[in-house]
Amino acid sequence: MRMYDIIAKKRDGAALTEAEIAFAVNGYVAGEIPDYQMSALLMAIYLRGMTDAETVTLTEVMARSGEQVDLSGLPGVKVDKHSTGGVGDKTTLAVAPIVAACGVPVAKMSGRGLGHTGGTIDKMEAVPGTRTSLSQQEFFDQVRRIGLAVIGQSGQIAAADKKIYALRDVTATVGCIPLIASSIMSKKLAAGSDAILLDVTMGSGAFMQDLDSAIELARLMVSIGTAHGRRTAALITDMDKPLGRNVGNALEVAESMAVLQGCGPADLTAVCLQLAANMLALAGRGDLRSCRARAERALHDGTAFEKCCQMFAAQGGDTRVLRDPGLFAGAKYSYDLTVRGEAGYITANDVEKIGNASVLLGAGRLKKGDAIDPAAGITLHKKLGDAVRPGDVLCTFYANDPALFAAAEQMYRSGLVICAQKPADPPLVYARVTAAGVERL
Amino acid sequence: MRMYDIIAKKRDGAALTEAEIAFAVNGYVAGEIPDYQMSALLMAIYLRGMTDAETVTLTEVMARSGEQVDLSGLPGVKVDKHSTGGVGDKTTLAVAPIVAACGVPVAKMSGRGLGHTGGTIDKMEAVPGTRTSLSQQEFFDQVRRIGLAVIGQSGQIAAADKKIYALRDVTATVGCIPLIASSIMSKKLAAGSDAILLDVTMGSGAFMQDLDSAIELARLMVSIGTAHGRRTAALITDMDKPLGRNVGNALEVAESMAVLQGCGPADLTAVCLQLAANMLALAGRGDLRSCRARAERALHDGTAFEKCCQMFAAQGGDTRVLRDPGLFAGAKYSYDLTVRGEAGYITANDVEKIGNASVLLGAGRLKKGDAIDPAAGITLHKKLGDAVRPGDVLCTFYANDPALFAAAEQMYRSGLVICAQKPADPPLVYARVTAAGVERL
Repeated sequence: MRMYDIIAKKRDGAALTEAEIAFAVNGYVAGEIPDYQMSALLMAIYLRGMTDAETVTLTEVMARSGEQVDLSGLPGVKVDKHSTGGVGDKTTLAVAPIVAACGVPVAKMSGRGLGHTGGTIDKMEAVPGTRTSLSQQEFFDQVRRIGLAVIGQSGQIAAADKKIYALRDVTATVGCIPLIASSIMSKKLAAGSDAILLDVTMGSGAFMQDLDSAIELARLMVSIGTAHGRRTAALITDMDKPLGRNVGNALEVAESMAVLQGCGPADLTAVCLQLAANMLALAGRGDLRSCRARAERALHDGTAFEKCCQMFAAQGGDTRVLRDPGLFAGAKYSYDLTVRGEAGYITANDVEKIGNASVLLGAGRLKKGDAIDPAAGITLHKKLGDAVRPGDVLCTFYANDPALFAAAEQMYRSGLVICAQKPADPPLVYARVTAAGVERL
Repeated sequence: MRMYDIIAKKRDGAALTEAEIAFAVNGYVAGEIPDYQMSALLMAIYLRGMTDAETVTLTEVMARSGEQVDLSGLPGVKVDKHSTGGVGDKTTLAVAPIVAACGVPVAKMSGRGLGHTGGTIDKMEAVPGTRTSLSQQEFFDQVRRIGLAVIGQSGQIAAADKKIYALRDVTATVGCIPLIASSIMSKKLAAGSDAILLDVTMGSGAFMQDLDSAIELARLMVSIGTAHGRRTAALITDMDKPLGRNVGNALEVAESMAVLQGCGPADLTAVCLQLAANMLALAGRGDLRSCRARAERALHDGTAFEKCCQMFAAQGGDTRVLRDPGLFAGAKYSYDLTVRGEAGYITANDVEKIGNASVLLGAGRLKKGDAIDPAAGITLHKKLGDAVRPGDVLCTFYANDPALFAAAEQMYRSGLVICAQKPADPPLVYARVTAAGVERL
């Protein structure tokens, strides 16, 4: 078998066999197939597509290419959650404790932020002392003891995906539904949970910019999970504006804690409950309505918040900041952006640009390995669809270096449009996709 | 400017600007852009195409990326010829002397064989003593003195094309009309002739397998040449069967000399005269009919053959073998392939497989830099369309190692079909393409 022939076959639009996919992926991981052949194949896949069967196979080959976590020794139906990425996307820190408080174990591996999107692990590390790198024994022990652990993803999970993703990132082959689906699902399959809830974000801050693409990605990931014997479902959630008001690591932790304490922003709270209810339903805890009721109870009786504090404490974190976010070390400088020009409605407020502005303030990484500033970020006072008048404060920037404000402001304003016409308000959740089909909400 | 954005733009089907093409190509030659980004761009070009304007620009950037030969100091309208490659394609060795004998200088750089196709330089080197690597001064002096020199292409001509072609060759991005056209024309432009005749081969032994593709390639190359102020025309010639009967270096030289001596195979002689007439017409020597008459005269009065001997003598070659090909050192072994099974007509005789069989006998290279055996090759006794009976000799193989015959026979027979029905005879020349349009012949 020759990589050349595999590239030519996909270039001509044919479907690759399991043997061909395994040859290409495993040969690439082993260093036998050079980058330039893999990137030609990736571009051919981008432009010619893959069948569902090819994508299922690609996912399986990548999942098997590295460490595979075996959670079967832990009691219960373990449920995982994955978001396709967003700005101010702090749901995991509220949802995982809610689900665990309802008695369903969550043994979760999460990622770090890259580009304009944030990552749960960076947010957790904003809590002083928190360790996100546990040994497998510590990880399993913690799940057994308190039913909840969220740690950084091992570099050995889906080794092929790691290498291929790095190549896609520099060859303009990231935004391809079969490649996105297989990348995400290979990691989820290798991470070992029995059930997987996918949060497919859609809008100006997400990979998927329209509902059809988001549903297609969700449908494909659900079918991959189902084909591998995992109970899998997806919610399509809005990313045309960030959930809540905060973007930035400590700022987002504070907001997630507000949700768990029953005083969080309404949009964020609603989405967290819906995600938690779906995870509970996947774990077999009843129909969606009763799962939703259970999740609300765990929120209102404080057990979810206590579960979250237990987790942070188990991982070495200082839970005082969770109980009182005022104790977080704040940024030294803040800066208010005000409305210029005419009164009107915010008709565009590009979320990718909000994310990039927060990166410029120090909250994210311009490149892999960069240090981040946990105190940096943005609080949004006016969001997409809000009425504004000249002089109103749009948002507040936080940074430890005031020289960062100018570039961040330019980035933020470049995505901002204020018009006389009030835009339609997007729903929080557009659709639910399960093995049974698509349910528009 | 970032290579990433250039890849993404082409991936999405947009046309690249001159600045973008120059950034990508020059950055790649300088080693600033890695192979894996260039191969992603090449696959995007393969699948998304390029406009004529993009292809003209790409050609120009590649032509400027290396040495550019300035022939303006040589008297007359210098005319070049290029074939897109074939098996048993020995026209240059007859055509260039005919044209030079008619008083039009030919200062030509040619290539070596690679894959199943042969190269003029390898054929010339079958003549003992012939030097194909001259200094520019020697090259110019020879053209001034005798009006004819054919030498190996300098490694510095179109340096970008050289590097890009090597990458295309391993990433399944060779067979793309804009990339083929710009690759060929960048070398022709850099080689400096005033007029260029293109021989676009079509059939089972050529890149182009159908007339529409061949015309498209010819049209594009003619428009590139014309856009750069070169008089350019193309003939679409048949490569569903080799011209003449010989494949292999010394064998082909012998057949070209037979043409120049007035006793060559009819098909080869006819195509050589048509190519020569078109080159003379491009050089401004009158209409095609009178140019054809001139070329026939140079053939029949022996001046073309003497011009050829002059050239070889000037380059150190032993012209005795030109006058009497029986003096070529023959292969030690020969082997006749005979017809098996029923009588009928040869309805398929895949030319790429004939070429590959001759490579297996030692006449070509399996990989760049391999040594070749000038005496090895094939003489075809029966060609596509011929009637055959069981026991008839199809062809004779020549090699210096009898162990090579078995694999070559298997290759040859794998492209052979004998049926009861006589196939239609393909024309020798399908069409002529000039800046004025396409003339089907």
